[in-house]
Amino acid sequence: VSAAPRGARRTVLVSGAGLIGTSVALALRSGGHDVLVSDIDPEHVRLSVALGAGRPHAGEDVEVAVVAVPPRAVPQAVAAALAAAPGCTVTDTASVKRQPLHDLESLIAGGAGLERFIGGHPLAGAETSGPAGARADLFAGRRWVLTPGANTSGRALADAGWLVESCGARVLLMTADEHDDALALTSHLPQIAASALASLLGTADEYVLRTAGAGLRDMTRVAASDSRLWTEIAAANAGPLAAALDAFSARLTGVSAALRERHEAEVSRLLSDGRRGHDRILAE
Amino acid sequence: VSAAPRGARRTVLVSGAGLIGTSVALALRSGGHDVLVSDIDPEHVRLSVALGAGRPHAGEDVEVAVVAVPPRAVPQAVAAALAAAPGCTVTDTASVKRQPLHDLESLIAGGAGLERFIGGHPLAGAETSGPAGARADLFAGRRWVLTPGANTSGRALADAGWLVESCGARVLLMTADEHDDALALTSHLPQIAASALASLLGTADEYVLRTAGAGLRDMTRVAASDSRLWTEIAAANAGPLAAALDAFSARLTGVSAALRERHEAEVSRLLSDGRRGHDRILAE
Repeated sequence: VSAAPRGARRTVLVSGAGLIGTSVALALRSGGHDVLVSDIDPEHVRLSVALGAGRPHAGEDVEVAVVAVPPRAVPQAVAAALAAAPGCTVTDTASVKRQPLHDLESLIAGGAGLERFIGGHPLAGAETSGPAGARADLFAGRRWVLTPGANTSGRALADAGWLVESCGARVLLMTADEHDDALALTSHLPQIAASALASLLGTADEYVLRTAGAGLRDMTRVAASDSRLWTEIAAANAGPLAAALDAFSARLTGVSAALRERHEAEVSRLLSDGRRGHDRILAE
Repeated sequence: VSAAPRGARRTVLVSGAGLIGTSVALALRSGGHDVLVSDIDPEHVRLSVALGAGRPHAGEDVEVAVVAVPPRAVPQAVAAALAAAPGCTVTDTASVKRQPLHDLESLIAGGAGLERFIGGHPLAGAETSGPAGARADLFAGRRWVLTPGANTSGRALADAGWLVESCGARVLLMTADEHDDALALTSHLPQIAASALASLLGTADEYVLRTAGAGLRDMTRVAASDSRLWTEIAAANAGPLAAALDAFSARLTGVSAALRERHEAEVSRLLSDGRRGHDRILAE
């Protein structure tokens, strides 16, 4: 049900020329596709085009639209893309899937065009934001979650699959709910944990900072991420993330209680469980 | 007050031929020094010597003894080294300093020889343990904490400084209390946090694991560490670590409460504080 024979040159709109959008555009351009770029910030469009991401979008019709804007702007941008090009498949790249889908459904009267939408989330990124850090190979070998809904057509799924492959990534299919529950644990919780850990060090005495080693630096690397973007992500996945934070916090206070009561076996058990978890994460 | 002119060949005992001890031995051997190795595990001595760490110790007199054994074994091993070579300086490499010093003081009748002891902790390591992972350059460019006590002689301090320099590291002086308070935040808390995070993932569904990315892998890397060693470290620094865990946990539950109550400003504040902390850590 693909709209075009494999390898054909396709016309794609990338709406949102930040790190992810521009990287998608660069990947598609390196595959010889026609890429049109738009952004509310004309400077992002200019820089993205200068980096080789394609041409500025001037209302041309497209076959596929990739909405790579912050989570909160996704519903409006997807609705606009669905309305602007009545035949095109629309997908997004946001780190949360349930809330934007819900808002999109509220936004579209009668659900017109929803069969052409499929949620997406490439599992790649960086602590930088904006087009300057974009790379054509940002998604190479990475997984890219697609979350087809009840209304999603086979053609939309095929188009999104084509996009993922064209970016060198691998499709990982799940529901929007599964995505958000999973990412709460594997991405949103680690982000808040890194930020909370770094925030503790932010107010520590100078001699404390001088004892920082590679372990701490690894664990706080993602604390450099864009706090506005991450506030939106956290808020849009509030329920699962709050539950993950509480479960994590309970394990930590369990250790502090065990340390105070000299229950070493409990400390040892957590460390062993962690080692098994580590091995499972690495095996993926 | 150094025992020997700069550059002279010195005789050093490395007691405990694990990752740290063997790396110290390799670094000293590459500087042309005479290194004697001992370990309760003869296989460790054999492998360490085979890797070029020196000769097996057969009771020869030494000028400096480096005790690189697990924290709990430190007091006994230091006392033995002080007694065995009545003129030598003794230092250790454990990740905790207050409790072993306290136990050592209880162990030595009248404090005889304590002026020849100085606590030490090279801020370098790996998730592996045992001599096989040792490297002569493990400490190159790293900091190495020395914690002289009230009784420590100038000569012991000079000898320990010579050791640190000979391993390519930089001396960082602080008290045993300052060391343990600092490391609770910069090393022991991150270790428990990584293990707790990894333990949560260890019991997650398979589809959850498939969404694991580079951020999570970075944050759980140290969860591969030796759980027996880390149980000893955590127990020996129970007070400061429990306080750090509670402070960390409070920030996390603060975020979960803010998410549930839709107080985005509080989430945003933590992320911004984390970013500042991150920059401070990187600047060190």
